[in-house]
Amino acid sequence: MGAFRLPSLANLLSPSAAVRATSSGAHHRSSALRVAASLSGGTDRGISTQSLAKEALSSPIADRKASSSPEASVTPRSVDFNAWYLDVIAKAELADYGPVRGTMVIRPYGYAIWESIQEYLNVKFKETGHSNMYFPQFIPYSFIEKEASHVEGFSPELALVTIGGGKELEEKLVVRPTSETIVNHMFTQWIQSYRDLPLMVNQWANVTRWEMRTKPFIRTLEFLWQEGHTAHATLEEAEKEALQMIDVYKKFAYEQAAIPVIVGRKSRAETFAGASRTYTIEAMMGDRKALQAGTSHNLGQNFSRAFGTQFTDENGQRQHVWQTSWAISTRFVGGIIMTHGDDTGLMLPPRIAPIQVVIVPIWKTEDDKAGVLKATSSVETILKTAGIKVKVDDSEQRTPGWKYNFWEMKGVPLRIEIGPRDVANSSVVISRRDIPGKPGKDFGVSVEPSSLVGHVKNRLEEIQTSFLQRATSFRDGNIIDVKSYEELKEVISEGKWARGPWSASDADELKVKEETGATIRCFPFEQPEGQKKCFMTGNPAQEVAIFAKSY
Amino acid sequence: MGAFRLPSLANLLSPSAAVRATSSGAHHRSSALRVAASLSGGTDRGISTQSLAKEALSSPIADRKASSSPEASVTPRSVDFNAWYLDVIAKAELADYGPVRGTMVIRPYGYAIWESIQEYLNVKFKETGHSNMYFPQFIPYSFIEKEASHVEGFSPELALVTIGGGKELEEKLVVRPTSETIVNHMFTQWIQSYRDLPLMVNQWANVTRWEMRTKPFIRTLEFLWQEGHTAHATLEEAEKEALQMIDVYKKFAYEQAAIPVIVGRKSRAETFAGASRTYTIEAMMGDRKALQAGTSHNLGQNFSRAFGTQFTDENGQRQHVWQTSWAISTRFVGGIIMTHGDDTGLMLPPRIAPIQVVIVPIWKTEDDKAGVLKATSSVETILKTAGIKVKVDDSEQRTPGWKYNFWEMKGVPLRIEIGPRDVANSSVVISRRDIPGKPGKDFGVSVEPSSLVGHVKNRLEEIQTSFLQRATSFRDGNIIDVKSYEELKEVISEGKWARGPWSASDADELKVKEETGATIRCFPFEQPEGQKKCFMTGNPAQEVAIFAKSY
Repeated sequence: MGAFRLPSLANLLSPSAAVRATSSGAHHRSSALRVAASLSGGTDRGISTQSLAKEALSSPIADRKASSSPEASVTPRSVDFNAWYLDVIAKAELADYGPVRGTMVIRPYGYAIWESIQEYLNVKFKETGHSNMYFPQFIPYSFIEKEASHVEGFSPELALVTIGGGKELEEKLVVRPTSETIVNHMFTQWIQSYRDLPLMVNQWANVTRWEMRTKPFIRTLEFLWQEGHTAHATLEEAEKEALQMIDVYKKFAYEQAAIPVIVGRKSRAETFAGASRTYTIEAMMGDRKALQAGTSHNLGQNFSRAFGTQFTDENGQRQHVWQTSWAISTRFVGGIIMTHGDDTGLMLPPRIAPIQVVIVPIWKTEDDKAGVLKATSSVETILKTAGIKVKVDDSEQRTPGWKYNFWEMKGVPLRIEIGPRDVANSSVVISRRDIPGKPGKDFGVSVEPSSLVGHVKNRLEEIQTSFLQRATSFRDGNIIDVKSYEELKEVISEGKWARGPWSASDADELKVKEETGATIRCFPFEQPEGQKKCFMTGNPAQEVAIFAKSY
Repeated sequence: MGAFRLPSLANLLSPSAAVRATSSGAHHRSSALRVAASLSGGTDRGISTQSLAKEALSSPIADRKASSSPEASVTPRSVDFNAWYLDVIAKAELADYGPVRGTMVIRPYGYAIWESIQEYLNVKFKETGHSNMYFPQFIPYSFIEKEASHVEGFSPELALVTIGGGKELEEKLVVRPTSETIVNHMFTQWIQSYRDLPLMVNQWANVTRWEMRTKPFIRTLEFLWQEGHTAHATLEEAEKEALQMIDVYKKFAYEQAAIPVIVGRKSRAETFAGASRTYTIEAMMGDRKALQAGTSHNLGQNFSRAFGTQFTDENGQRQHVWQTSWAISTRFVGGIIMTHGDDTGLMLPPRIAPIQVVIVPIWKTEDDKAGVLKATSSVETILKTAGIKVKVDDSEQRTPGWKYNFWEMKGVPLRIEIGPRDVANSSVVISRRDIPGKPGKDFGVSVEPSSLVGHVKNRLEEIQTSFLQRATSFRDGNIIDVKSYEELKEVISEGKWARGPWSASDADELKVKEETGATIRCFPFEQPEGQKKCFMTGNPAQEVAIFAKSY
């Protein structure tokens, strides 16, 4: 039965992977990740296949037992960004492929990052007046057809349940790709009068979209998200809500994830299927491709007209409600990896990190051991009491060097080392993940509680700030103002983002996409002053747009 | 479009409902709940149809605008327990039917109860060493077939995805009814050595079982749950884990939900499909039917042998892992309703209640209003600061009497009334939900912060204790020891639980079920002392079993 395992997984991913698996007798899943990525439009230059081969048939943790430098097996970012991304996901144990093509298993460490995201947003949603609830995931097929552009946008990627309890169903059921239709069906029953408005709800749920090109976290057949749905009495209220929620996302991105997103409005072509307006936060990844990291839609009355979601206003008139919806998904975890990671692995902003500080006790003799472990336990207690997320790695199966590399791969912001000499001096050594070598180390930090806690908290804040600054400089250095289509083409061919005045047609937008691969990511809220002339047509333009290749 | 709404929902539920909806022009969804329940084996005597008819086309909140006694529309428990249950769910706004037969929308107040359950258990799971993660919900059909009794148990109730992205799939996908198969598929990749054990994970997820007879919260096509999955090196460890987790559930039931469950082992016939042993917590509902409220399975090596989940032990030998799984679902919310509710509506144990205290300010003149609202706000702040979950109902559209009834329907444990005279006396009136009228009221409670907080906390604790005591007395008064099959038949026909020594065959167990409708709920951990003789066969028996009709 043991032989069943990996070849079977590889089979599901691609025929070539199956061949490799058979020929080598076993195949590491990190390679499987790579192969699948090549199917997904990534490149598989086989760069780290050799290093991975060493670890065949081992789990990532077990892999590194013999090695003290697990990071050697991560493809450098500069060599192949996509391979680096998949290596980090495998080595930091964030996710794995599921048995069905394009599905993903979110492993505990990856899920803990999602939990950090949930914890923050869940509080903000409630503070802004929303209640959590749960809508069923099976939607009658006829619902999807009610809103014209919605069905056009979603019907190519639906998963359909056709058999239930052993019988062919009379009506096919859609596994929700998003819930606007079923939400409206229910809202018609809960909304009668203006007194029932606004109705503001959210759900944390799984959704399914039958994507052809998948990539862990970024685009998977099934993913986790929250979807907010609201109904209002007026267009103005709905617009205010849509803007409020994109602002919640923006603050989350800047303040928690240290990702300096650009906030703006989508072009008509890129607006959500069924929305009147889509607001977006766009993030620049380490390879300078754009990631749409969160969206908030003003749905107008599109769904309320399709479903008859009406209320009686204060004058006794029946009106259709005005609606919004907004979502952030597990894709955001991919955005964090691709914004902050380096060749040593993941780098997590302290406010998102499931583990903010890892403590590595170091001893050689049994005599030293007791004292070191006692000091370790004391430091752990001090930090935990102060609300800092601490992990002690006192495993005896690994060397300290192995542990350093392992926790660096996992992107833990700070490491505390405690050896016999530190015990004697009542001090510890603190190392920053983001600054390699001596410059990132504080030696002789006192273990006196208030001093230690203050030191650690300051360092964590410094790291948080530094992550955002670094990402902001990177972003700003890679957004180039353009005055002509020629300039845009050059900027895009260099892999950068182009910003320029735009008032051209949808057809011109499509032409840019076909000729350069770039799309309008958004019309940013922050607009330069002064008169503008469309770089494509020479006509006056109200706004600049940002163009980029994207995930 | 407006006319589309309710008839369409009713259509999905039953033809007779559609007829009624058409004939009356509109149909209240509470009646729809009732009709569906009659399909589910409940009775629809139409007892409260008249009172419901008044409220046609209104939401439950809007319903009660004109009325100051909404509770009049709840069927008394003693008259029709099932109708009472469905009325409470509708009136307390806990859930609604989804458009697909047997699906349920969990409304914000019902979902908030589920969140209370999640918050407690999530901490306990982490304290006991488990990590959250997420497995995909689509499982290749072939996986389900690997474990013989598993496929037998689950294949009749599977929902199958056969079309994805517009194409017929090569292999049908099962929408997970539970995740043991996909978990094992992944465990084979993560477990290599004894050092990788124990592996202890949990997921919060939705699951789908194509049930024919459904009932909100209790049995729905899709429901929410947590499912824990663990792998261990030895049978003993797995057994210890299975027992540990049923104990976590038991403590939760007693200490948080105030439900005095009976903990025990399932009979062979009632053991989970694929498990070696199933432990259960069985709760007695207000109608004395049993509810299986949580289970923990020792899976032995059944799945690890089917999937080849092996590890290399300390001696270099390959071994199959020993596993457990355990789950609690949104069914528990139904258990809380049916354990504690009364003819006035829901009653929530304070530790589970999303709102522990509702404050109702009362004024008649504009002069009084400012002072009353100021005092209300001050009391709210005092209680919130003390960590008490408070809601102020200062809506001007409803009378105080209406509000009292509404929040009683919602089962809020304590109500604080603040009127002008209370403001003048720097005091408030506090009313207990569980004790009607004057005996449940404290007059002149000082608003001095420490005094008020102490008073409220004490009352909440008293209520929590009192709920458990009442439920325990009810349970103990309805479990009857039996010495013969005749006695059992009589006890069961009276609607009670029968407890008696049992060592008879599976065939005898089936005979009891067929002849009385009762099943073995469990062999309770708490066993009476002394020699036992099977009440069915007269042979010696090791244990007593508990028999009851169940949901």
